Amino acid sequence: MRNCLIAQSGGPTAAINATLAGIVKANQKDPYYEKVYGGLNGLEGILSSQLVDLGEMSDLENDILIQTPSSALGSCRYKLKKDNPLDFEKIFAILDKYDIETMFYIGGNDSMDTVASLDQYAREHAIRNHRFVGCPKTIDNDLMYTDHTPGFGSAAKYIASTALNTWQDYNVYKRREVFILETMGRDAGWLAASACLSGIVDIVILPEVAFEKAVFLAEVKRCLEEKNKCYIVVSEGCKYADGAYVSASDSNNDGFEHASLGGAGGALKNMIIEAELCNRCRVLNLSTSQRCSVTDLSLCDIRESFELGKYAHECSKEKMFTGKMVALKRKEQEEYEVEYFAIEADKIANFVRTFPLEWVLPNYRGVKQEALDYMRPLIKGSLKILYENGLPAYVKPYYLR
Amino acid sequence: MRNCLIAQSGGPTAAINATLAGIVKANQKDPYYEKVYGGLNGLEGILSSQLVDLGEMSDLENDILIQTPSSALGSCRYKLKKDNPLDFEKIFAILDKYDIETMFYIGGNDSMDTVASLDQYAREHAIRNHRFVGCPKTIDNDLMYTDHTPGFGSAAKYIASTALNTWQDYNVYKRREVFILETMGRDAGWLAASACLSGIVDIVILPEVAFEKAVFLAEVKRCLEEKNKCYIVVSEGCKYADGAYVSASDSNNDGFEHASLGGAGGALKNMIIEAELCNRCRVLNLSTSQRCSVTDLSLCDIRESFELGKYAHECSKEKMFTGKMVALKRKEQEEYEVEYFAIEADKIANFVRTFPLEWVLPNYRGVKQEALDYMRPLIKGSLKILYENGLPAYVKPYYLR
Repeated sequence: MRNCLIAQSGGPTAAINATLAGIVKANQKDPYYEKVYGGLNGLEGILSSQLVDLGEMSDLENDILIQTPSSALGSCRYKLKKDNPLDFEKIFAILDKYDIETMFYIGGNDSMDTVASLDQYAREHAIRNHRFVGCPKTIDNDLMYTDHTPGFGSAAKYIASTALNTWQDYNVYKRREVFILETMGRDAGWLAASACLSGIVDIVILPEVAFEKAVFLAEVKRCLEEKNKCYIVVSEGCKYADGAYVSASDSNNDGFEHASLGGAGGALKNMIIEAELCNRCRVLNLSTSQRCSVTDLSLCDIRESFELGKYAHECSKEKMFTGKMVALKRKEQEEYEVEYFAIEADKIANFVRTFPLEWVLPNYRGVKQEALDYMRPLIKGSLKILYENGLPAYVKPYYLR
Repeated sequence: MRNCLIAQSGGPTAAINATLAGIVKANQKDPYYEKVYGGLNGLEGILSSQLVDLGEMSDLENDILIQTPSSALGSCRYKLKKDNPLDFEKIFAILDKYDIETMFYIGGNDSMDTVASLDQYAREHAIRNHRFVGCPKTIDNDLMYTDHTPGFGSAAKYIASTALNTWQDYNVYKRREVFILETMGRDAGWLAASACLSGIVDIVILPEVAFEKAVFLAEVKRCLEEKNKCYIVVSEGCKYADGAYVSASDSNNDGFEHASLGGAGGALKNMIIEAELCNRCRVLNLSTSQRCSVTDLSLCDIRESFELGKYAHECSKEKMFTGKMVALKRKEQEEYEVEYFAIEADKIANFVRTFPLEWVLPNYRGVKQEALDYMRPLIKGSLKILYENGLPAYVKPYYLR
């Protein structure tokens, strides 16, 4: 008997369940594994044998799972400590107990570190009956080697749409007004940059570009003098040249909010009001809604996320395929198309792919056409959503059943 | 020659342009008016003769206008002063100059006050060649006599979807956690209550129910003890028994934000943290996104808003039809259906329809089934959105052309 186990980890996205659905569907079509287990709350649940059987999933449940945001299996921030063999022993014992040949782990850098660590442990202990396969996901789009990450396209579509919508809204009155949209992105500015796809952003502040208050305020002033309005997008992780977060200068923050960032928008607002440039300044911090909104999922994103799951299943049938992450490569041709490949998980773990500085316009004036050309295909198409009683239909989280 | 003029006023909604599109389309099918003018920025633009010609709108532009959020003609907060005849004289001079028989004004209570005032002035001065017709819109759903208001259904659908999405998100980690969703609603709790359509709200705080800190904290505690999680929805306008806003106790607010409310979520968060019930507490203030998000427009809402525009056009052909607002009446039958009627605008102006106290559960535990039954049909159906380059297609605001 050979089975597989799928788990999810890290911050959820709107597309992470599509990859889960892809693996499940692949095994229904090609039942290489007898049982498909889901591990609840990532490593946390696996370590306590909290597994559910996903093999019997109906086509309808699979369709609904695809459009369900966030990690249906639950998530964790649990990290394996390499110098502590206890967790490793426990995990391998559970994999043995449930005859699990392949463990699929869907996540970001930290999760790829888990995949790499488990693979390394297996090699060091000459364990050859388990394989570890990583599937990427993160709205942050900050993983190395893969052209982009599942989840980014849908988040980008949501952010750019929200920019377009709120721009339509803040313009209706003739009064002088500033709007600040705050996105996630601790170290990488991809999400903030994606707002520029809307074509209405005046100023964008990325973590990659050192923040200079004087330059920023001069830009706001110029913009307000020109058209009485100024639309600003800021990444939660924007920093001064010395590395201090701009959000740290926001006195509105309490200890917790601060620790998890957020508040950069409020800090910029305070600067604008203190400089007496404009006293009408609204901040919209998208918070977690940017990673779990599904009514405007990118079809491109959801399809690729699903296909990556299928590809991971296919690859995993190969005996030597372990310690790898499946990834996306953009074909070098005019029309957008991707192919799938795999790369060593340890090349992904603990690295961050930041937004290219050569794609940034000076003085926070936005991003270059190359950046828009790169991002545009990723937000294209809309998934047809299934509704129930006027709201999107979702699967009940497996960890709450 | 007889023409008409359409203008929009007050806070925009995602459905306000559907009514505009309905009037324009009605006159294309039945060209009672020779010219259809749009007045820019409500009374402000009308007073300075800023009119555009909407009569030649193509079917495609009409379709795109329907899905364009916010007031495509621009808005204003301008109020006619009844003791100052100058504005009135100016407006009637402009109506005469452009041969405007009917002025359609799309807005909320303040706008209906404008309709009533213009009608009253006309009567007092025996002016019989102009008619004033109000069309309702407001996400707040706080107008009297009409069963509900155009714009509310789409906002409610957006709020309930966002509640469902962020609930899926905040649940994935096992940690103790509180989520606070803040909605608009200065005096009426309809928007906050609409979040309950998601079925996941633990606590909802409406402006209609006096806020008692001790009761609130006891509920949060009970909820956290039961399931380690607590999902709270709060209306920006929630108040203590003495009428003081809860947001006023939020030290995070600066002068401006305070004046325009917002901050109730932050205030509740501070209470929870100070009471040491939970230190992980995220606030999502939906801000203007709740009145301008279109990817999840309610089909029911958009259709009714469009039909109201057509109905207003039809009514306006009658000589005596002036000083009225068109409105919605729910038929007394099992299946949801509405009929259209008209009511004197002065019965609407300056009144607020609050959320019925008999629909509220005790201790902030949500709303009763009657409330859900009332709101459910209003969020049903989804408008098929037209896209351009991966984002919803919108008309360029007429005031920016």
